[in-house]
Amino acid sequence: MSSSRDSIMNTFSMNGGDGENSYANNSAHQKNVIYETQLVMVESIREMLVDLGFPEYIKVADLGCSSGPNTFLAMSGMVNTIIDAYQQKGRTNSVRPEIDCFLNDLSENDFNTTFKWLPSFHDGLKSDLKGRCFVSVTPGSFYSRLFPRKSLHFVYSSYSVHWLSKVPRGLKEDDNKRSVYINSSSPRNVYESYLDQFQTDFSLFLRMRSEEIMPNGRMILAFIGRNASDPLFRDCFNPCQLLSDSLLDLVSEGLVKESEVDAFNMPFYDPNEGEVKEVVEREGSFEINMIETLEFVNHFPTSENVVDESSDQFKHWQKIANGVRCITESILVPHFGEAIMDRLFHRYAVHAAKHFTVSIRPPTTSVNLVVSFTRK
Amino acid sequence: MSSSRDSIMNTFSMNGGDGENSYANNSAHQKNVIYETQLVMVESIREMLVDLGFPEYIKVADLGCSSGPNTFLAMSGMVNTIIDAYQQKGRTNSVRPEIDCFLNDLSENDFNTTFKWLPSFHDGLKSDLKGRCFVSVTPGSFYSRLFPRKSLHFVYSSYSVHWLSKVPRGLKEDDNKRSVYINSSSPRNVYESYLDQFQTDFSLFLRMRSEEIMPNGRMILAFIGRNASDPLFRDCFNPCQLLSDSLLDLVSEGLVKESEVDAFNMPFYDPNEGEVKEVVEREGSFEINMIETLEFVNHFPTSENVVDESSDQFKHWQKIANGVRCITESILVPHFGEAIMDRLFHRYAVHAAKHFTVSIRPPTTSVNLVVSFTRK
Repeated sequence: MSSSRDSIMNTFSMNGGDGENSYANNSAHQKNVIYETQLVMVESIREMLVDLGFPEYIKVADLGCSSGPNTFLAMSGMVNTIIDAYQQKGRTNSVRPEIDCFLNDLSENDFNTTFKWLPSFHDGLKSDLKGRCFVSVTPGSFYSRLFPRKSLHFVYSSYSVHWLSKVPRGLKEDDNKRSVYINSSSPRNVYESYLDQFQTDFSLFLRMRSEEIMPNGRMILAFIGRNASDPLFRDCFNPCQLLSDSLLDLVSEGLVKESEVDAFNMPFYDPNEGEVKEVVEREGSFEINMIETLEFVNHFPTSENVVDESSDQFKHWQKIANGVRCITESILVPHFGEAIMDRLFHRYAVHAAKHFTVSIRPPTTSVNLVVSFTRK
Repeated sequence: MSSSRDSIMNTFSMNGGDGENSYANNSAHQKNVIYETQLVMVESIREMLVDLGFPEYIKVADLGCSSGPNTFLAMSGMVNTIIDAYQQKGRTNSVRPEIDCFLNDLSENDFNTTFKWLPSFHDGLKSDLKGRCFVSVTPGSFYSRLFPRKSLHFVYSSYSVHWLSKVPRGLKEDDNKRSVYINSSSPRNVYESYLDQFQTDFSLFLRMRSEEIMPNGRMILAFIGRNASDPLFRDCFNPCQLLSDSLLDLVSEGLVKESEVDAFNMPFYDPNEGEVKEVVEREGSFEINMIETLEFVNHFPTSENVVDESSDQFKHWQKIANGVRCITESILVPHFGEAIMDRLFHRYAVHAAKHFTVSIRPPTTSVNLVVSFTRK
């Protein structure tokens, strides 16, 4: 197996297509996140248009767009908001803006599936923008330059910036035994390595965007975060913990070596507000207009105390497992191989069922950070 | 079967992937065409840069880029030419331009395969353009607006503009019996319908580009044409004729109904210079700097007078058949069904072998038109 410690850029993608394990079919949660950022996005775009004097050409980008119906959900929101703002400004048809929409994700993303949703994107726009709304895709890592200097008016990214560019470079193979992410029993240096990688990556992200976004341009980022300041305490529903538990089951079953679990760490970080603010202030190109920590109670159906894998109820937990599978499979397969994936996510479903319905104090929340920026 | 008389926009694409019948694996001829336009392209870009005063930002587009190694071949040529021109101008590093590259094809094109060639595109550039050369894909028909007003400096399109937007609207189902395209025994109105559709489509193509290309911007088009002024005489190697012959074989074998062949016509037209010039002059937005009719002798291996389908030699003709299959299959399948495709292109290989090696007067040439334009 190749090491998963290298850059994730060449292999990472949400599962493509529209099958059972595809991102397109398992991204209802991410859809809700997009809805939850809607108000902040609308306010930000309106302020930007006023600041920039309602320009005749507007270029917007969605970074980490993935593939599936969500891809165009955020973009529809942006374009419709722009149209509304111009209509309320009372401009005549002849000066309605041309809107240049750019979708970005890593080049392994299933853009072929993405393009199948293009006609319904155009159909869903509030006014006939035929010949005035253009959609392009820009493949590549958002930890590098993607667009020309000062070309962007508005950038949006939902559920992407929590992905690091790689497994923390400071992390040694045995630092975080029997776990794929920070947990309450991780050594302190595990947290420090993760925080360091987050600071490096997020700072680079801001610098790249600061070159691409024009002065007074705006950016909205929504990503997984946490509430607690205790570096080892993950107060939210943490799929990584269930993934660790599921992998350890496969160790017991002899399907995975324990050393393989020890050596694997997710290239992911869930910062708290303070950690985000510190990087933004140090990098210096952006002003934070608003930062919000949103805590969601996950509403899962109650169940009996024993997990019945043949029940209809269990299908729900399999769906939860698929939601994690479609996101993490491209990272897991290079390290653990493809053969164990079905079994792994079956165990994940069992753990999810136990976690949410059996445990005494279920941590049934998830935490998202939403940040609104202005390019200085 | 659905009718093939509608717009081809929703289904047409070069065969994707990199398998035996893929465009990526069967486009050596198109590669040669790109090489043959290289000198004209270099001259056009250099003149444009002088006219526009060596701008700091340059946006170029390749329309009908397809999927495979050829996709980035033309784009590499353009970017390297731009770099050379700036270097010869003696500019320092700090004012080297940012180059924004756009690849376009219909949304059914296999862009996922295209993106696999992206790293080798960047590696093949003459100088390190890290952070200064951006690649995006814009899916859609070039018979519609694809880009914002006056945003493009240079447009290139190779082996695409001979595709009509649809089967000629004036053509009735039985107008062109036992043939999928104009041939020497077609009624005159078949030619007239094709010419009319070409004039409509090409004029629309020019109008869309005239809105997108800035004044003094340039465009190079290379596409299949013909030499003769006789409207029914196709003097070149014409794959459509061999396709008709192959389909009629399948009629004899009972696999295809003759009425299906009667009703099918290729959405393709090979104009001569005069027909092209007339549309350009009437549309009025572009000046023709140069128009060339290039005639190529197809060098095929000689063979015995009898087609031996088990011979190694026959593999060559199968390769020729694959070259046509990867381009036409997405148009043929909606009309004739997928089941006959293997048989059809086996027969095509047999006809190709006979055509080039057995016939007394083999028309072993193909004709391309290359046109260099300036946006007025």
